[in-house]
Amino acid sequence: MNDLMEYDRIHEECGVFGIYAPVGENVSKDIYYGLLALQHRGQESAGISVSDTAGPKGNIETVKEMGLVSEVFTEENLDRLRGNIGVGHVRYSTTGGSSLNNAQPIAMNYIKGSLALVHNGNIVNADRIKQEQMYRGQAHFSSSDSEVLAYEIISERVRSDSIEKAVSGAALKLKGGYAVIVMSPRKLIAMRDPFGIKPLVLGKKGAAYILASESAAIEATGGELIRDVLPGEVITITREGIQSDRALCQEKKAHCAFEYIYFARPDSVIDGISVYDARFRAGQALAKRDLCTQPADFADRIDLVAGVPDSGLVAAEGYAHVLGKPYASVFHKNSYIGRSFIKPTDQERKNAVHMKLRPLKTVVSGKRILLIDDSIVRGTTMSEIIKELKRAGAREVHVRISSPPFLHPCFYGTDVPSTHQLIASAHSSGEVCRQIGADSLAYLQIEDFDHMAGELPLCKACFDGKYPVQ
Amino acid sequence: MNDLMEYDRIHEECGVFGIYAPVGENVSKDIYYGLLALQHRGQESAGISVSDTAGPKGNIETVKEMGLVSEVFTEENLDRLRGNIGVGHVRYSTTGGSSLNNAQPIAMNYIKGSLALVHNGNIVNADRIKQEQMYRGQAHFSSSDSEVLAYEIISERVRSDSIEKAVSGAALKLKGGYAVIVMSPRKLIAMRDPFGIKPLVLGKKGAAYILASESAAIEATGGELIRDVLPGEVITITREGIQSDRALCQEKKAHCAFEYIYFARPDSVIDGISVYDARFRAGQALAKRDLCTQPADFADRIDLVAGVPDSGLVAAEGYAHVLGKPYASVFHKNSYIGRSFIKPTDQERKNAVHMKLRPLKTVVSGKRILLIDDSIVRGTTMSEIIKELKRAGAREVHVRISSPPFLHPCFYGTDVPSTHQLIASAHSSGEVCRQIGADSLAYLQIEDFDHMAGELPLCKACFDGKYPVQ
Amino acid sequence: MNDLMEYDRIHEECGVFGIYAPVGENVSKDIYYGLLALQHRGQESAGISVSDTAGPKGNIETVKEMGLVSEVFTEENLDRLRGNIGVGHVRYSTTGGSSLNNAQPIAMNYIKGSLALVHNGNIVNADRIKQEQMYRGQAHFSSSDSEVLAYEIISERVRSDSIEKAVSGAALKLKGGYAVIVMSPRKLIAMRDPFGIKPLVLGKKGAAYILASESAAIEATGGELIRDVLPGEVITITREGIQSDRALCQEKKAHCAFEYIYFARPDSVIDGISVYDARFRAGQALAKRDLCTQPADFADRIDLVAGVPDSGLVAAEGYAHVLGKPYASVFHKNSYIGRSFIKPTDQERKNAVHMKLRPLKTVVSGKRILLIDDSIVRGTTMSEIIKELKRAGAREVHVRISSPPFLHPCFYGTDVPSTHQLIASAHSSGEVCRQIGADSLAYLQIEDFDHMAGELPLCKACFDGKYPVQ
Amino acid sequence: MNDLMEYDRIHEECGVFGIYAPVGENVSKDIYYGLLALQHRGQESAGISVSDTAGPKGNIETVKEMGLVSEVFTEENLDRLRGNIGVGHVRYSTTGGSSLNNAQPIAMNYIKGSLALVHNGNIVNADRIKQEQMYRGQAHFSSSDSEVLAYEIISERVRSDSIEKAVSGAALKLKGGYAVIVMSPRKLIAMRDPFGIKPLVLGKKGAAYILASESAAIEATGGELIRDVLPGEVITITREGIQSDRALCQEKKAHCAFEYIYFARPDSVIDGISVYDARFRAGQALAKRDLCTQPADFADRIDLVAGVPDSGLVAAEGYAHVLGKPYASVFHKNSYIGRSFIKPTDQERKNAVHMKLRPLKTVVSGKRILLIDDSIVRGTTMSEIIKELKRAGAREVHVRISSPPFLHPCFYGTDVPSTHQLIASAHSSGEVCRQIGADSLAYLQIEDFDHMAGELPLCKACFDGKYPVQ
Repeated sequence: MNDLMEYDRIHEECGVFGIYAPVGENVSKDIYYGLLALQHRGQESAGISVSDTAGPKGNIETVKEMGLVSEVFTEENLDRLRGNIGVGHVRYSTTGGSSLNNAQPIAMNYIKGSLALVHNGNIVNADRIKQEQMYRGQAHFSSSDSEVLAYEIISERVRSDSIEKAVSGAALKLKGGYAVIVMSPRKLIAMRDPFGIKPLVLGKKGAAYILASESAAIEATGGELIRDVLPGEVITITREGIQSDRALCQEKKAHCAFEYIYFARPDSVIDGISVYDARFRAGQALAKRDLCTQPADFADRIDLVAGVPDSGLVAAEGYAHVLGKPYASVFHKNSYIGRSFIKPTDQERKNAVHMKLRPLKTVVSGKRILLIDDSIVRGTTMSEIIKELKRAGAREVHVRISSPPFLHPCFYGTDVPSTHQLIASAHSSGEVCRQIGADSLAYLQIEDFDHMAGELPLCKACFDGKYPVQ
Repeated sequence: MNDLMEYDRIHEECGVFGIYAPVGENVSKDIYYGLLALQHRGQESAGISVSDTAGPKGNIETVKEMGLVSEVFTEENLDRLRGNIGVGHVRYSTTGGSSLNNAQPIAMNYIKGSLALVHNGNIVNADRIKQEQMYRGQAHFSSSDSEVLAYEIISERVRSDSIEKAVSGAALKLKGGYAVIVMSPRKLIAMRDPFGIKPLVLGKKGAAYILASESAAIEATGGELIRDVLPGEVITITREGIQSDRALCQEKKAHCAFEYIYFARPDSVIDGISVYDARFRAGQALAKRDLCTQPADFADRIDLVAGVPDSGLVAAEGYAHVLGKPYASVFHKNSYIGRSFIKPTDQERKNAVHMKLRPLKTVVSGKRILLIDDSIVRGTTMSEIIKELKRAGAREVHVRISSPPFLHPCFYGTDVPSTHQLIASAHSSGEVCRQIGADSLAYLQIEDFDHMAGELPLCKACFDGKYPVQ
Repeated sequence: MNDLMEYDRIHEECGVFGIYAPVGENVSKDIYYGLLALQHRGQESAGISVSDTAGPKGNIETVKEMGLVSEVFTEENLDRLRGNIGVGHVRYSTTGGSSLNNAQPIAMNYIKGSLALVHNGNIVNADRIKQEQMYRGQAHFSSSDSEVLAYEIISERVRSDSIEKAVSGAALKLKGGYAVIVMSPRKLIAMRDPFGIKPLVLGKKGAAYILASESAAIEATGGELIRDVLPGEVITITREGIQSDRALCQEKKAHCAFEYIYFARPDSVIDGISVYDARFRAGQALAKRDLCTQPADFADRIDLVAGVPDSGLVAAEGYAHVLGKPYASVFHKNSYIGRSFIKPTDQERKNAVHMKLRPLKTVVSGKRILLIDDSIVRGTTMSEIIKELKRAGAREVHVRISSPPFLHPCFYGTDVPSTHQLIASAHSSGEVCRQIGADSLAYLQIEDFDHMAGELPLCKACFDGKYPVQ
Repeated sequence: MNDLMEYDRIHEECGVFGIYAPVGENVSKDIYYGLLALQHRGQESAGISVSDTAGPKGNIETVKEMGLVSEVFTEENLDRLRGNIGVGHVRYSTTGGSSLNNAQPIAMNYIKGSLALVHNGNIVNADRIKQEQMYRGQAHFSSSDSEVLAYEIISERVRSDSIEKAVSGAALKLKGGYAVIVMSPRKLIAMRDPFGIKPLVLGKKGAAYILASESAAIEATGGELIRDVLPGEVITITREGIQSDRALCQEKKAHCAFEYIYFARPDSVIDGISVYDARFRAGQALAKRDLCTQPADFADRIDLVAGVPDSGLVAAEGYAHVLGKPYASVFHKNSYIGRSFIKPTDQERKNAVHMKLRPLKTVVSGKRILLIDDSIVRGTTMSEIIKELKRAGAREVHVRISSPPFLHPCFYGTDVPSTHQLIASAHSSGEVCRQIGADSLAYLQIEDFDHMAGELPLCKACFDGKYPVQ
């Protein structure tokens, strides 16, 4: 997998952002900058809700639309969004039935006033909770688990003293990986799943507190990272400052490995680990393994090391560093293709590769290339990429994948193509190699994988089938 | 009041439409034609939901947007709305905070599947029902009582055998004036409030059944009126035909008088009474009263009888008929002004009169005019109209109002300007006459009013303060 | 013909507006109001150009778009159009290939600076002039004769001392009926064709001069009519005031009869004749003729006189006045249909009648109706109208047409359906009567027609084939 | 300069595309793909014109709008653009007064039929030609020299036997750098300026001929490069094949150096030279010069070599290759920023750098970095970039610029900021170095520059003031 081919993607990801600034400041532009920095996590819809904590109670203003952050927001509508507290959201782009109904923030009125909610992740038991809600007579307007979560918080709020207790109460029922920010007209509450599957960080910009999916979004506003929200922690930000409720915190952690491999920006730091470093180390591990297992002249038979843009690039730098071979860009990437109307047929997928990634002939001609990508899903994309390189004169293309084969479904938010579409699930590594036309193929070993994020405990269920919860 | 001046309007009205056709037919275009015919009842938003009763359960498709019917619907989106059962809605235009959130149909999923609801009217006790819903943990996304009603039906559905029983069950709790059409993927259910405050008619087009706010909408599709839905009746249309549940029907009726005076189209027939006839008779009653009470030469001192377009025109014809004086159009009405951006300031209201209604100088010059309008709200509009007529050479302008003075708030869906804005509530008829610059002024007497709609029992609470319910 | 049925229309008409206000005033809102008042003359596109006569030379700002005046202009873009001199245009709506290319004002730069031009009418010899321009190497971006006219003025300007002389120079070459307003950054120039075929009036609002297609547009701004621009006159408005060049004025006049019959607003006064009066007199003439030629009991056999909305209404009042029979509205007109997507097939044309004009049953039931329309083109519309009336219970429908049969093509701007589509050209009056299902049919006699506009010499070429020029 | 900062850009560039396919094929999608591949040359507007060479003469269809290729074109409008011959255009984005008036293709009718024209470049003597056209009475609707060129071709056509001769005839009068494709309904004609300042290539896809600004656009369609259009050559493609008119070809060439430095895609080959290679060689030259002129331990004092994305990257690879030091990516680039509403103030320019380019801390922390960019314009961007790197922990930042200082205005299409905005024109290299906060600064020497594009004669007027023509 690489981030070029939107129709080959395996994930369902979003970006969340929240900010609490002193009364009188206006946060809509900071949220806007933060969402621009999180745009890679979702291009389908974007939205912002704000409130003035000193204003009349319950006065939450929301703008949300289908489209990119830069398309949804204008100088005019940002000007109308006035308040010192707010949340924002970007939603992933699906190829099929997406709609404004699913856009976030979810803003609503309930017994205690109003709230707005943004959510990244997957509530594994959402269907059961939804069923219970339906038996209580609850209607649902979308198919999203975020809506289910919002109703559950409201439902808890009826019997809780405060919105933060309602959030904690709801959290007790949830299974899955999630990062949620809830805004009442006076408070900002963040909650992260107990395993820490989804990322959520806390930062500061002057006297304002910021919450975001990635540290890069905090920096985009000119702020700086304080720390990660702890797995299981509920953070409440009010006029009085920050309160932390760690009742749900637990020993066992299982951070999603795909944040490091693919989802997050390389300049983000998640759970203390730089995404760049994790990718670089994955590349290094692949190279070390090759030096151990390949014939002695393997390094000599490689002319250059390259990555598939964008998420394979850093691992390629790491690989090159260990192998002592030059790292080179072998593609020109056309960044204007993403939003065209190309349809998800196999032929169009091939065209998309053709349009998006053009090999640099001078670089590849006559060369033996070690090419790194972060994953292989269907194989179609990689097969086309290799064809393009060979057509441009490459003598050999050796493929290394900076993650283990993807074999098991994910229940925590990463969207799984049906198993029969996963090339690795039906074919041996040798077969895949032949099928994509590579001269050799190797994946990251699961044991090497562990070093990628240092001592951080990762969820590797999609590789080894060992799920953090049943 | 007259329908020209949108900022002088006193009502909150909508149009509803529903159709159940045999499997295989496509109803979206019929709904489109029906909504075009109901456009006068609401210009803010328009929407259609359809379902295929032979298709997979729960597959309701909806299109709704802000704007006129002709703006919201295109050949393309009507083509995508495929099904043999459907509902449609047009919503009134407010000057202030309108939004897509309030647009109908309300379509949602719940424990027994899905449904779409359209609603015209006002649930008087919506706040109390909403409060109860909130205590049960229900969230609300809009400020509309339609949403409250939808949740109540769903809530009933949990403990009912069928959707029609849930509708009847919900009806038991409702107070107010309403006409509702609910569509499940297989059934169409209509319900009208027990007093018959809001209109709802049943028609037929070939083998299809139609429900609509006015008979004109049935005719627009090429169909014909069968009868009115009875006050308190719940009608269920399925593949097997029509079922009528009259458990809520009661002796006492109180049809809204404003449907005849102002809301409805003159070519519609509501509760057996032609709207045209009602208006004509109101004009006749005004003339008869003048013949009794005015000096003997009154008729001689009138050169022509005219109405304020559009809702004063028919009454003027009736008046002219009794008085034996020529009826004439004295204005050219510019029908392109309505949707311009003119702001609701007093000056712009005057400009709007100036732009919308231009006196025909040849007709009015040197003439003594008897001018009929359906109501006076603030007085600004009538004052401007008289000024325009006099500027164009009218010698005298005698104003007659085809309804009694509007003095009491309406709780059944007619939007009341705050009492101090109602010119009649603070001023005697003589003062109003001087203030608007008329040469004489008279209102329809409440006792004449009774004859307007024949033997039909009307709700006249806004005139006499006698409310059908407490 | 009546103005309901856009697909049955025979004309190609536009509205023009110009204003010259003292330095410091801002005219865009006056132009906006003026165009709203001229909207009936064209619904396809709208545009405004303004300039500040005290600003840097050549700085003309233009906004033009497809759509209604209220759709094209917003508070925002009117605010950006700043200047004390300006022109505006509304363009007729065609069913076929319309485009932004044809929208006006035409604004351009040329050897002496810049200009903006608005035009209503038809240059008969545009093709020959265009041919000459093409031989000089001129390119054309649209198919409009307005563009040809603009180039001709520019071409004249090269060898003229002033823009007004260039306009006069160009006028010498033009044949046809036209009303043109040209704005240079400092001057406003109006020109009207020597026969006075197209209307153009001059007015005043405070210290500002106004030019417009109809007097109603001057009144819409709060201004008042001064006089008509004379046929053949070129008027130049500068800081110094008004100059009139009457070199092209001639004895012979031929004002377009259709302005009175159909195009213009009834509250407008054109060439000294009230449009309302002209229509009223046409109705009177029809009635007088009937009284002479019909059996003695004819009047007794008519219950009521009615018009087809909107352009048949005034004539019906005139007819009723002579006959001594009551005038009545027999239709409810739905004014929301016009801009729907209905296609110009015969069936859709019938649907459009069905949707747009609903008979008022109480009024027509059992009645013998004398129905007046302004013209019959294809006959489809009238045939449907009569069917609707009969279906609603009318006993007899006698049709009178307030213009003579349309038999000859118009070369001065009125769009001619090909002759075989004109029902009158292939059928005798009796045949047409049978075909449309009327109980009797009569047209306005050409000799009566002459009295319609008093002593005013009208162009009646489309009725009698006598063209003012060869 | 680098391509991040749109407000720091110095160029005015466009992309042109043309295709002639056998009758029956439909070329609109190929043009669409070609324009997507040229999008980097212009993001302001996009347009396509097509014609069917077997269809009725003169039937050119055009769609053009403001916006990106993927925004302007939809499945629907591409479907409507049917024909086997066509041209397309993308236009650069300016910050100020851009408008649809300037969008291309320019499509028009003239004496011999119709034509559509697309143009990249600058006609130096456009003002004089425009003046002549104005004296002939020609109006102009835009400020573009492309419009002037179009009129000149039409003007020639009047006295020429064929459209291709008219193009050649016009070419005789033109001075400047240009690449033009003209489409008549039957022919496709390409012309390139005699110095070859602007690029234009010829390719083939099956039986279709393609013309484009860059070879990458030909490859995007699946076609392949044949050769460059020769400087001064006029190529005519008809049903019979290709004809070449080389009457204007001359000895002296002067290809624009900026195509290699910045404008073109690295995977394009222009005038036989790979853009990638040229950039790589520029980096090599910078490194060689450093090895000669810097202290012996210079290389040891550099930890890594990096480029400013995107146009500085390849040169950095070349530099690293010579220096024997690792090449590394030091930035994460956010590709979603470009089209946001950020305003061209100095502060917003700094914010844009902050948002768009985030340093990768792990990579830069503690490092001595050799950083390559393609140019320095105002210095603001580079100054911010260095600040960001230092803030992220970089110990030293040595800046190398892969082009000589930009000192002289360009008359051939490269937009020059006024001289006082060019930091290099007022400051010595040492001053600039201090001002941007670099630890050292060097530019590419003009003599090294010559080797960049092999033996190809480049126009270096902006560096040395020696213009190819007076």
